[in-house]
Amino acid sequence: MKKVSLLAPGPTPVPPRTLLAMAQPLIHHRSSDFLEIFGKVRDGLKKIFKTDNDVLVFCSSGTGAMESSVANLLSPGDKAIAIRGGKFGERWTEILEAYGCVPVNLDVEWGYAVKPADVAKLLADDPEIKAVYVQALETSTGVSHPIKELAEVTKGTDVVLVVDAVSALAAYDIPSDEWDLDVVISGSQKALMLPPGLAFASIGPKAKKMMESSTCPKFYFSWAKELKTQSINKGAFTSPVPLFLGLLDIFALIEEMGGLDTIYKETEIKSKAFKAAVAAWGLELFSKENASTGLTAVMAPEGIDAQDVVGWLKNKYAIFIAGGQAQAKGKIFRVAHMGFISEFDTLQAISAIEMALAGLGYDFEMGSGVAAAQKVFEEA
Amino acid sequence: MKKVSLLAPGPTPVPPRTLLAMAQPLIHHRSSDFLEIFGKVRDGLKKIFKTDNDVLVFCSSGTGAMESSVANLLSPGDKAIAIRGGKFGERWTEILEAYGCVPVNLDVEWGYAVKPADVAKLLADDPEIKAVYVQALETSTGVSHPIKELAEVTKGTDVVLVVDAVSALAAYDIPSDEWDLDVVISGSQKALMLPPGLAFASIGPKAKKMMESSTCPKFYFSWAKELKTQSINKGAFTSPVPLFLGLLDIFALIEEMGGLDTIYKETEIKSKAFKAAVAAWGLELFSKENASTGLTAVMAPEGIDAQDVVGWLKNKYAIFIAGGQAQAKGKIFRVAHMGFISEFDTLQAISAIEMALAGLGYDFEMGSGVAAAQKVFEEA
Repeated sequence: MKKVSLLAPGPTPVPPRTLLAMAQPLIHHRSSDFLEIFGKVRDGLKKIFKTDNDVLVFCSSGTGAMESSVANLLSPGDKAIAIRGGKFGERWTEILEAYGCVPVNLDVEWGYAVKPADVAKLLADDPEIKAVYVQALETSTGVSHPIKELAEVTKGTDVVLVVDAVSALAAYDIPSDEWDLDVVISGSQKALMLPPGLAFASIGPKAKKMMESSTCPKFYFSWAKELKTQSINKGAFTSPVPLFLGLLDIFALIEEMGGLDTIYKETEIKSKAFKAAVAAWGLELFSKENASTGLTAVMAPEGIDAQDVVGWLKNKYAIFIAGGQAQAKGKIFRVAHMGFISEFDTLQAISAIEMALAGLGYDFEMGSGVAAAQKVFEEA
Repeated sequence: MKKVSLLAPGPTPVPPRTLLAMAQPLIHHRSSDFLEIFGKVRDGLKKIFKTDNDVLVFCSSGTGAMESSVANLLSPGDKAIAIRGGKFGERWTEILEAYGCVPVNLDVEWGYAVKPADVAKLLADDPEIKAVYVQALETSTGVSHPIKELAEVTKGTDVVLVVDAVSALAAYDIPSDEWDLDVVISGSQKALMLPPGLAFASIGPKAKKMMESSTCPKFYFSWAKELKTQSINKGAFTSPVPLFLGLLDIFALIEEMGGLDTIYKETEIKSKAFKAAVAAWGLELFSKENASTGLTAVMAPEGIDAQDVVGWLKNKYAIFIAGGQAQAKGKIFRVAHMGFISEFDTLQAISAIEMALAGLGYDFEMGSGVAAAQKVFEEA
């Protein structure tokens, strides 16, 4: 018997009750019932983002909202810092170049976090730089960049800070307003426990002002258009109705689970337990600093291809974790703690990885990771 | 008791079995199982589009795919004809302008179809025009533009014909390859009986060639990127997994219903029955020519606001039909025949409209529309 388990850092498992909430008969996207739902979604998102700013909803993957933060803020020729400490950081450069903007690439070795002082220096050296693009949690390396500290650099300046929190939002605390984050981007398929298909962007006052002078082309992802229609609870285009129903159910579920703080805490405990297992196996994290709680990236043992660990779990046990991307491919495997993943799902992942490592010839004490994780869960 | 009925021209009702197919546990979008599903979706879409061209899948509303057909084909300054016989025709102009292209607007009185000779003349007069943008079915007026004849104008030239078939595809026959359609766009939420969230674009050889010289910015909607990844059954970005499962179920359902030809025929019969009811009431169609089978747009009686008919159905019976948009607002109401709508759903709509018209003081014979429609169904 193979029961499929999803433990990759997105898409994450969707609670069965939420799947059923989304299976309700379709309602019209311009009906008063749906407008009411849209309003609740807007309010609920503001609570999750911890902001009074408008949070726009798009029907797209998270990348669509990332692109919107270039197309709506900048004009061709504008300079912006792309913090590149992984695959998603590199995407900023690609999007900036696609729009004829000039990326100022701040390359950070994969596995490390950006130094806010380096960003401050770049900004001081070049007053033409208009924006800083960064990931809160760089999913490809498991590293959390120091968002609070970066915001201290851009606060009080005209520079807009854009934070991709696709993997971070609702996994750990990223309080938009408290930290003065100008734009925060997220998606439905990570800690929000929904299928892919919704992307979000919160737009602060500095970003709204910069938006007014942007000349990059935009239509489907136009913030101005969506700010206008979403303020009266309508998407500019046809909204994906079931995902809105799902999001309402997730808001309720988050409350029932004890609220965001409880979820942050539980995610942290799962992360700590998993990382304790990694240490017990004698393995190292890929994230050399600021290892996130949302997921863990593990270096495969010397002589073992990390893709073989991933393949072993998938082919023998129908358990899905993720491998490394680009330069990290073959070197690391990644396991999610964010979203609808329990402590026993985490222990299952640890068990399965132990069985894979043993099968692939790694010499370690079987069960040592499970025991180390159990200890963390017991103490919590 | 109010049972909600969705009879507006999109989103249309989703078959309950398809809602449940989409409620299956999420699988990973890079798993071999999902790649297999992606391949089946690609093959199935080719059958629906009746094409050997690649049919790209995007996570967006139909407008995203419309925008992609400007961003990927044209460059700033390029001229293109926008056939504007309704609200969706006008959207072409908005998108072209957003990208710095030069729309050559061919305005058609709402309720009428474009004359292919007018397009031919514009093209002959200005050899700089690179593309023609048109709706197959202009949802705001109920008119079907003569796509086959338009394609005869562009065939053998370098001009690319882009057809928005969001409301037309699978409602009536639009054979892409037989008619030489360069680009055909559609969406999930009309005759394909799914929730909103997927958009499609088929890309023919002429379009692929023009794509190579396009300099408009694009990233999320990049055809080149998606042609590369979707050829190996992967979306460039995270695919909305449940809608893919839903689409497979819809493909099966279409076969069980007797195939596309049966569906076209049944849609035509529902349309004929509804239009017979309109005639029995002594009312007129808004579509003065080429009235589509996908939906019917009806002129409200003199002295009655069409929005009151729509509101009556919604508020008293929980039945959703659509009103008019922009210049047609208050003048017309629109009822869908495409998608998961049966003959009895159609009779229900006719009954309800009769009760509304009577309630609003229109003088006609109650039941006359129902009887006229029943006769059509009996004879079919």
